[in-house]
This record gives sequence, C-alpha cells and structure tokens, in this order.
Amino acid sequence: MIVVVNNNASKEQFDNLVSWIEAQNVKLHFSKGETHTVIGLVGDTTKIDTELLEGLDIVSQVTRVSDPFKNANRKFHPDDTTVTVGNTKVGCGNFALIAGPCSVESEEQIVEIAKAVKAAGATMLRGGAFKPRTSPYDFQGLRDEGLKLLLTAKKEVGLPIVTEIMNADHIPLFEDVDVIQVGARNMQNFELLKELGKTNKPILLKRGLANTLKEFLMSAEYVMSEGNENVILCERGIRTFETYTRNTLDISAVPMLKELSHLPVVVDPSHASGVSRLVKPLSLSAAAVGADGLMIEVHNNPQYARCDGPQSLTPAQFEDTAKAVKKVLEAIK
Amino acid sequence: MIVVVNNNASKEQFDNLVSWIEAQNVKLHFSKGETHTVIGLVGDTTKIDTELLEGLDIVSQVTRVSDPFKNANRKFHPDDTTVTVGNTKVGCGNFALIAGPCSVESEEQIVEIAKAVKAAGATMLRGGAFKPRTSPYDFQGLRDEGLKLLLTAKKEVGLPIVTEIMNADHIPLFEDVDVIQVGARNMQNFELLKELGKTNKPILLKRGLANTLKEFLMSAEYVMSEGNENVILCERGIRTFETYTRNTLDISAVPMLKELSHLPVVVDPSHASGVSRLVKPLSLSAAAVGADGLMIEVHNNPQYARCDGPQSLTPAQFEDTAKAVKKVLEAIK
Amino acid sequence: MIVVVNNNASKEQFDNLVSWIEAQNVKLHFSKGETHTVIGLVGDTTKIDTELLEGLDIVSQVTRVSDPFKNANRKFHPDDTTVTVGNTKVGCGNFALIAGPCSVESEEQIVEIAKAVKAAGATMLRGGAFKPRTSPYDFQGLRDEGLKLLLTAKKEVGLPIVTEIMNADHIPLFEDVDVIQVGARNMQNFELLKELGKTNKPILLKRGLANTLKEFLMSAEYVMSEGNENVILCERGIRTFETYTRNTLDISAVPMLKELSHLPVVVDPSHASGVSRLVKPLSLSAAAVGADGLMIEVHNNPQYARCDGPQSLTPAQFEDTAKAVKKVLEAIK
Amino acid sequence: MIVVVNNNASKEQFDNLVSWIEAQNVKLHFSKGETHTVIGLVGDTTKIDTELLEGLDIVSQVTRVSDPFKNANRKFHPDDTTVTVGNTKVGCGNFALIAGPCSVESEEQIVEIAKAVKAAGATMLRGGAFKPRTSPYDFQGLRDEGLKLLLTAKKEVGLPIVTEIMNADHIPLFEDVDVIQVGARNMQNFELLKELGKTNKPILLKRGLANTLKEFLMSAEYVMSEGNENVILCERGIRTFETYTRNTLDISAVPMLKELSHLPVVVDPSHASGVSRLVKPLSLSAAAVGADGLMIEVHNNPQYARCDGPQSLTPAQFEDTAKAVKKVLEAIK
Repeated sequence: MIVVVNNNASKEQFDNLVSWIEAQNVKLHFSKGETHTVIGLVGDTTKIDTELLEGLDIVSQVTRVSDPFKNANRKFHPDDTTVTVGNTKVGCGNFALIAGPCSVESEEQIVEIAKAVKAAGATMLRGGAFKPRTSPYDFQGLRDEGLKLLLTAKKEVGLPIVTEIMNADHIPLFEDVDVIQVGARNMQNFELLKELGKTNKPILLKRGLANTLKEFLMSAEYVMSEGNENVILCERGIRTFETYTRNTLDISAVPMLKELSHLPVVVDPSHASGVSRLVKPLSLSAAAVGADGLMIEVHNNPQYARCDGPQSLTPAQFEDTAKAVKKVLEAIK
Repeated sequence: MIVVVNNNASKEQFDNLVSWIEAQNVKLHFSKGETHTVIGLVGDTTKIDTELLEGLDIVSQVTRVSDPFKNANRKFHPDDTTVTVGNTKVGCGNFALIAGPCSVESEEQIVEIAKAVKAAGATMLRGGAFKPRTSPYDFQGLRDEGLKLLLTAKKEVGLPIVTEIMNADHIPLFEDVDVIQVGARNMQNFELLKELGKTNKPILLKRGLANTLKEFLMSAEYVMSEGNENVILCERGIRTFETYTRNTLDISAVPMLKELSHLPVVVDPSHASGVSRLVKPLSLSAAAVGADGLMIEVHNNPQYARCDGPQSLTPAQFEDTAKAVKKVLEAIK
Repeated sequence: MIVVVNNNASKEQFDNLVSWIEAQNVKLHFSKGETHTVIGLVGDTTKIDTELLEGLDIVSQVTRVSDPFKNANRKFHPDDTTVTVGNTKVGCGNFALIAGPCSVESEEQIVEIAKAVKAAGATMLRGGAFKPRTSPYDFQGLRDEGLKLLLTAKKEVGLPIVTEIMNADHIPLFEDVDVIQVGARNMQNFELLKELGKTNKPILLKRGLANTLKEFLMSAEYVMSEGNENVILCERGIRTFETYTRNTLDISAVPMLKELSHLPVVVDPSHASGVSRLVKPLSLSAAAVGADGLMIEVHNNPQYARCDGPQSLTPAQFEDTAKAVKKVLEAIK
Repeated sequence: MIVVVNNNASKEQFDNLVSWIEAQNVKLHFSKGETHTVIGLVGDTTKIDTELLEGLDIVSQVTRVSDPFKNANRKFHPDDTTVTVGNTKVGCGNFALIAGPCSVESEEQIVEIAKAVKAAGATMLRGGAFKPRTSPYDFQGLRDEGLKLLLTAKKEVGLPIVTEIMNADHIPLFEDVDVIQVGARNMQNFELLKELGKTNKPILLKRGLANTLKEFLMSAEYVMSEGNENVILCERGIRTFETYTRNTLDISAVPMLKELSHLPVVVDPSHASGVSRLVKPLSLSAAAVGADGLMIEVHNNPQYARCDGPQSLTPAQFEDTAKAVKKVLEAIK
C-alpha cells in the first residue's frame, strides 16, 4: 500500500500517522519529494481500512498495491476452484449449463421444462420461487410453494436445482436446494451474505448492476470469510447508458475475474440482454471467452411466462444453443 | 398505455392479445399503419405488467403514458406530504437539518456531537449503528449497542434520531428510533421494504447508486402499498464514470422527484461527494434547488472517525454551513 | 410515430398541432383517453424532427415506431452489405483481420510489423499517423510522414491500409489510403462525416465512447446520406463505471447492430480492454458472437511502443490469436 | 509520480527502466517490498507519458501524485482568472448571464430575443449558427447567414455574442464573434482546439458528455498550451443511466473544477436537463454552488423553435429566473 502525504503536515501530524501505521504490523519506506512524501507499506495490508487513511487531511492519496480480498484472491490460491453440486461440478474444465424458467409457475410447467432442458444437455435446473420485482404490483413468485415444486422436478428428473434467496430468514426452507442464488439486487445485502457464509451450500453470487469487479469479489469475500468457500460468480450485465439491451453484458469481466480470483465464473446471457434473440450469440461469446458455465432462461411458453418472457428461449432454441456452445468449447480447447 | 403490434402477427395471435388486454378492464383504440398497428389502452393500467406484453413476439413496443406508481404519485395526491417526526416536521416548507456521525462510536462521542449539531440548528440526529461496508474486514458498526447509545443521546439532547436498518429481523430493536433509514444498497431489498411498510415509522429511503427515479419511486411504493405513507426520499449521488467525487450528486433529481411525487425529498451531500470540502457548496445548491432538507455527516474528530472520515464536517464547519443554508432558503422564498 | 397529447390542451392548440402534422405527409389516427389523446402517425416519419414535437407544452410523449436512419437500416436493405477494400472484402462471410501498431514510428518498424502480421493471416494493415491524444504533451503521431511510411509498407507487403483521419482538410493526403478510420472521439464530428460522405473511400467508423447504437447508426447515416455507402462499423468499448478495463466491450452491440443494420461490424478488442492479456479471449468472443472482423494492435516491441503499449500483442501472440479465431469461426459456421 | 514494479522483473529489465526514468530529469526513491518495489519519481513529471510506463510488463501500477495539466492548474496559478469579453467580464466575482436561442432563425427572431434578454439582465447573447445535430435530416443551422444575423443583433443591442464553431476552417468567419464556443461533441476535437489556441478569442469550452474533469482540463490545456489563456469552462450535464432528464447535471463539478483550476466555470442548465421546467431550479443551484455564470436558452416562441424547444425559456421566464439568481448570489456573498 502506498500513502502520499502532503509536506505541509506538521511534524506532530506526520509522526502520529507513522506510529498509527507502524501499529498495523507493516514496515514503512519513505521517499520525500518537493511537495509530497510517499510512504510505502510493506507486509499484510489486507485488513487496513484505506478510508481511514484517506480521511486524514495530511494524506492526499492512498493506493493499494495488492487487492483487499484474500480468500477469493488467486494470488493466494493459484489453482482454479471446482465447486461440486450434487452429481455435477463447476469450474476447472467442468462447464455448467444451468437452464429453466424465470419463475416456477406450476408443477406441470416446471417438470415439463426440467425434462426438456435435461434432454438438451442442461446440468442444473434453475427456477425462481422468491422473485425480486421492481413493482409491488408485479407477480412476486410462488414462494414456499415454488420451492416445493422445484424439489418435485428435481426428484422427477434428477437435476440439481438453483434458486434465489431474498431473506436470511428463509435459509431453512432452502435445505434441499443444491445451489442458493443471490440476485444482483442483493449482492451487497451483507447481512444475507454473512448468514449464507455460515452454511455449506454452494452460492451462486450475481454481480450487482452497478458494482465493480472489486466490490463483486469483496461480496464473495463476505461469504468466504465466514467459512463457506463454495462460491460461483455470475456476470449478468451492468447498467450503462445504452438502452437497446436491458443491461450491458461485461464480457471482459469473465477473463478479468478469472485472473483476479480462483472461483468459477458463469454468465447469464438472458438477464444481460433481456432479448431472447441475443441469447444464442451471447452464449457462444461467453463460451469462447472462457466462462465456466451459462445460466439460461427457458420456458415452454415464453409468450405467457409470468415474468421475463422476452428473454426466455423455447426448449428447441435452448437445444440448438447448447449444441452450438459445445462446438465452441471444442474449438477453444 | 400504448402497445405497438407488428402487422405480420397472425389473426389468431392478434385476437388473443386483444382479448387478454380486454380482460384487464381497459378500453382499446386501434390505429393501423403499414407495418404496425398501435393499440391505445385507456383506463387504469397501473397494475398491468408491461414486461408480459413486451414478451410477446408480435409486440414491438410498449410505452406507459402514466407512471406505474400510485401511492407515491403526485397526480393522485397533488398536495405536498408533510412527514411528522417527533417534535419536528419534514416537507411542505419545513426544512430538515439532519446531522451526526457516520458511525456511533461511544457515548461520549455521540452525546458531544448531538449537543454540537443541536446548537448549530440541526433538527434531527443521525448516526450509524448497523453499517453496510464493502469489505467484511472493515468496521461493521456497534450494532445493538450503537442503537442504545443513540437513544442515550436522544434523551440527553432531545433530538429525534435517524439510523439505518439492514435486516427486517431487527425491526423490534428500532422501536424507539424516530426515523428508520434504508440505505442505498438496500433500496431494492423488497423483503425489507414490505416489512417496513407494516410499521408506522417514518422511513428515510435512499436512492440506490444506479437506480432510476422510477425505480426509486417504485421502492417507495413498496413501503406505501403496505400502508405506511411516511416516506422521505433521499438523493445521495449516483454512480457514473467520474472519479473525482465518490458519487455524482444528481441535483436535478430533486425538482424532478417533487414533480413526480408528493413526498418530501432530502439531499445527502456527504455521501454524494465523499469530500468534506464539497459539503458546504453542495448543501447550498440543494437548498437552492428546492430540497426539503439535508443529511450531513458531522464528527468531532473527522481525522479519526471509524468510517467515512473524509466526508465529515467538524461541528464548526457544520455551523457555518447551516447558517449559509438558512440565507439561501430566505433568498428563494 | 406516436404522439401523446394532454387533454388539457385548448382546441386551438390541438388543431394547430394536427394541421402541422398533416403537413408532413403522414396519416393520423386518434385514440382518446381520460387524460391523454394518442395520435398515431402513419407513413414516412423518418424526417420528422421529434424534438420539435416534444417541445410543445401540450405534448407529453413522442415515440418512434420506426428508426430514424434509412440508408443504414436493415429494414430497407435486408441483405448484408459487403465492403470491398483493395483485394479483400469485409462482411457477408468475409472476415477481416486488421492488425498493426497503434502508431507508425519508423519505416523499419512499420514494414517489419506489416510482414509479421501478413504472415500470421492479417487481411489489412493498420497504423496511426495522426493520433488523437488526451494530453497535448503526449506523442501526436508522425502525421504526413506517418502516412508516407504506411504507403511504403503497403507497397512492400501488399496489404491494404487503414488509418485515422482527424480533420476534413487532410482528405487529399488520404488519397492512397484504402480505408479511412474515424476515431471514437470524432464519431459526432459531423462536418468531417459529411466530407467523408463525398468521397468513395471505405470508412471505418468507430463508436463513440458514450454513444448509443442509435447515435452510432445516425453517424453512419451522415456519411451514407452524402452518397458513400462503404461504411464499416467498429465496436471498441464504451465508458462505464468499471475501471479494471480501460473501456467496457459492449459485445451485445455486434448482434444488435447486425439486426438493425446491413453494414459489416468489426470489433477492436485492444482499445476495448486496454490490456493485452485480454485481447485473445475478447477476440474469440467477438468471432463467436458473429462479428465480421477484428482490429488488433500488434507491435514488434510493445514495451517501447510510443502509445498504447499496454494493449499491443507481439507478432507471436497475434499469430496464436489468429489461429484460435479461425477455429472458432469454423465452429460457428 | 509513483511506479510499482513486480519483483519478478529481471535485473536487466529493472535497470533498463531505471535508466529510462532517470533520463526524464527526475529523482528516484526506492521502497522494496516482498512482491513489489515502489519507485517514487520526484521532480517535474507533467510531461512523462504514463501509458508508456504502464505498457511495461514489469510495471503493475503507475499513479500520478500531481495532475498532468499545467497552464490550467490552480497549483501553478493560485489566483482566479478573469476573462474579459468586450465590455463585460467573467470570473473572480463577475457573474456572466448568457442567454439566447438554441438556433438563430431570422433577423426578427434574434433581435427580438436579444432585446428581451438584455432587458432582463443578460450580459451576453448566445445563438447557434452552425448546429451539430445527431441526425443528418434535422435542421443544421443557418451557418454563415446565422453568423451575420448574430452580428446584426450585437450591433442593435450591444451585447457581446457567443456562438459555436464546428470546424477549424471556419475560424476566419468568427472574426467579429466575441466568444467562440466549442460544443460537447467537439471537446476532444484536438485539431480544432489547437487552432483555437492560436487565436486570442475567449473560448467557451463545454464538457464532453462522457468526459472526466481531468480530460476536460486536458482539453483546456490544448487551447492554453498554444498560447490562448482565455478559456471559460462550461458544465452542461453528463450521460448516465437516468432518462427522466436528457443529461445529468454534475453540480459537484463546479466546486471541484474551481479547486483544480483557476479558470472560470459556467453552467448550462438548459442542455443539462433538456426540460424547461427545471431550468430555474438548476440555475439557482448553480449560483448557490459557486458558478461564475449561466448559459440559458431563451426563445420568444419555444413552441416552434427549430431545435431544442423543450428546454427553452420564454423571455418572461428568463426574467423571473434572472431575478431569483440575483437573490441567491446576494445570499451567498
């Protein structure tokens, strides 16, 4: 860590700062310029609160040389992490194909879709029971009932299930769920992340719509610092000024996250674009860029899906996409 | 609401759509063009899920003529709302001056600051007990203990208190709190908003860092639709590409929110800028633009504040700012 | 086009509006609601200035059903356009591989790189002579001299050349250049676009760093409306809040542009990321998503390149990338 | 300037770097950590190209301690600059009130508006002759003819005139213009900036819609480094995700620019919001935050203005705004 101090600091202020830093168990090197003195901090600076330092009037800049996340950091865990989910794996060469409807609507619907996506090559079934909706007047999901229907589909077809949680109080309801998803809007719901860190469930953590990669990895760190290392990162598009697509898929985030962290990274092309016609090309681009999996919305009747219809594929479109993704994965081996 | 349908829709598809819309209790008007047919929906369309319509392949565009929020909408409540907080009021000519430290740190600290800000004209005391921090390794607040210290300060100086909640489970702990704050990161924590809607406490709702004004008002609607109409909106800066300031204060949001809604709007210049030197000019600009109040971080020793030090004013700076704000309020009367 | 009029308009205001619209040679359909009247405009609305309509107090909303670009619009030109560049083509199955240094630095440098990229499969040579730099103190390019060196390299190796123009006055200097590039910062330099529209040179138009796809296509329209239909679109990353990469590659822009327009679309992964390590994965993702080509920075000594060193590949890295791109193109055929 | 070097650099690489830096006439200080070595550069680093350093594989980070602009930098010119425009001044306590139509449309129009705004207290007349429009099919301004009409109005009412240039070739046409405006889309048209730097005309430089304050000041530096120090900065809103307003007025930019630079800063609330109802509150907020002036669109018939009608004030609204601004200026003295 580098701390730049104004030379107009008084001797007392400067000495106070130096003794505070020394108390953090790091070594200091000084480089005095005409207007500023640069202090280099050498040692473990992960837990030093940079905002505290920036708060001092005499400090004009604080720069981290190393990233403030530790458990999620590739520097300390050079090998890729593989997350095991029931009878399947994600990461380190295991490509996850997660598919299913935005919302669970009925037993018939979820079982039918589960069969179709399994036949097309899906390795996990997704489906929303608790739905975060912008408007209180929109459909909020079947909630507990939806979870039961997902478990019925799981028993019927044998795919592990992925579904979203919105409240730490609901954790007991997710006992038989294979992967608990944290949605973009809850990426910084730290109370929820801490509680999920105390479980041993794989967590699929979606990037918030205006969160940097650093913040994203700090949220993974919240889960991991409580002891749960089974975190799968999911890039799902960020908010920009462009409006032709619902969000802007940040495809560069995939190789960048894999450089910064050892955790597996999957891509959700359905929410990223909000347009079903773009799901296939974006899936191919995610496979080509090195993602460890895809999460795709599939509905047997996208026209009447109770939410997010515009971005869902039909089972036939999903099958076509899955085949094309396989070819791209072969090509980049 | 306007629905634009492609003329390449089959007669069956078109008729299905028309009957679905008719079932929503609205009247329809048709305007047929060469490539598209425009359907105008007349009546109460607030509760129609536009995403469902956009999901249909034959629909190329859906536009709302009226906004999807009702309780928060000025059209249905032309008069300004005044929110009563203990012995003070916000809105409709009552300017709120909310001040205090980012975090409660000790009884001595919070009582001393409370006295200082009261003397300088503050109408409410703020202070964080539960703190949302990006890193799990940063100070997380004194939690329950912090709430107790706030209540001590309240008893001591007689100012109503404002403090942030992060979890619906904690609502019972907030029984003696005067205003419950929902932070930017929880603006779309819908489970929390619904529970707060069942209380009768004034809610200070902060805008999310990448949320539109429409989403902001929909979140207010979550609280109001459960029966709690005591919502105060707070603009606190949005995330943009600019990095000189921590966030970008969206000053236009103030008059725009007051046009769209009858709820009071306050501004937080401390978080908006993250720079204490900007707090005074931004406070003046918020007063001039028509805000109903300010929420300002004040610390008796900003150099050693346990969080957000760089953006805190000293009590003397706050007093100076409060006086200047008063003059601007006089000038725009 | 749809115009929504407030019902509080006076009869005179409403009649004035109606006669103004009728004078634009379009037909009108009316749909009267409780608070608003919706007017549907049927016919060629491409040249109606929507801002003029939005300017009227009685108008609360104007929405285009069809896009305001015509020459660039796929609706009017359903088939893909192929742009011929010397002995090579771009679009409609012809994949362009454009490579070369950010800046031309010397005859030795440009000829050596030209040979290397040709050997690795490049179909065109790029190189900057006129360089737009944020700081007046940074290297501004060899200018006229740089153009001459590019032409030497062209003669030597036989690759068509692509280079950037910054000023309409320089057009005569570009007589032997094969493709004239318009950089992101000049995407809305309309005076320059118009002059380029009067030439018959292929134009490689880069998307501005904060421009929507609609604005991008309107800029293509500026060139095309003057008679030059040889436009190649180039996605090169947009500005967002994320800072790990220099820009954010908007990969969805490729399929979306190809849906909206018949023009070929190439991707510049070097400027999009600003990080040479990301150039290969992003190139693969662009090939997979359906781009018509790539523009990649290659330098024989990226360590000492006079600009944009961090994002340049070595010739060996470029060869490796070109081979991998070929495999992906095979896979998605 | 601080350069962070990876310790896995070879001795040769490290020594090469050190000798390259030493050749830039700065002194070096070293601070060696476990994984990185921090090099502090002491001396005039303004003209060192940071991208070149970042380009080296062995360099992991480069941070400027001082800003790369010199002429525009307050550190080297602590006193406020006053720009003289005809019989009026801007900056250092002189508040500029620039008003007029978006486009000059006819002699009658421009003279009538000029008289009205002068009567209401305007200190300069603005009006567009050359108009940058997103669509080639929209009105492009009266061009040369428009300039002549502006000069007529100037002669008639005696106000200095401000009008936009789009092409360096047009500079001779602007001989009698008092202030040459560079629009947001041309903020990084460096060829134009350099030519304007060779004139002695006051330049009103608008911030680009997605440009940082640093880039904005570097563009001012382009003009100033050629010898023209008469630059007025203009904040006119930036592009964000919010769509209720055309742009987002970055009000914090005003005090931040005044801290970084000695140049005067004016605000354009008309383009910033695109909504005439917001022009008055935003004008008051700009006055309160410390701006040195305002540039406001005024039209005698906003309903039929040929461009940007929705954001223009009537002369009566302008008069009302001007009076209110005066009161706020008094209040903050």
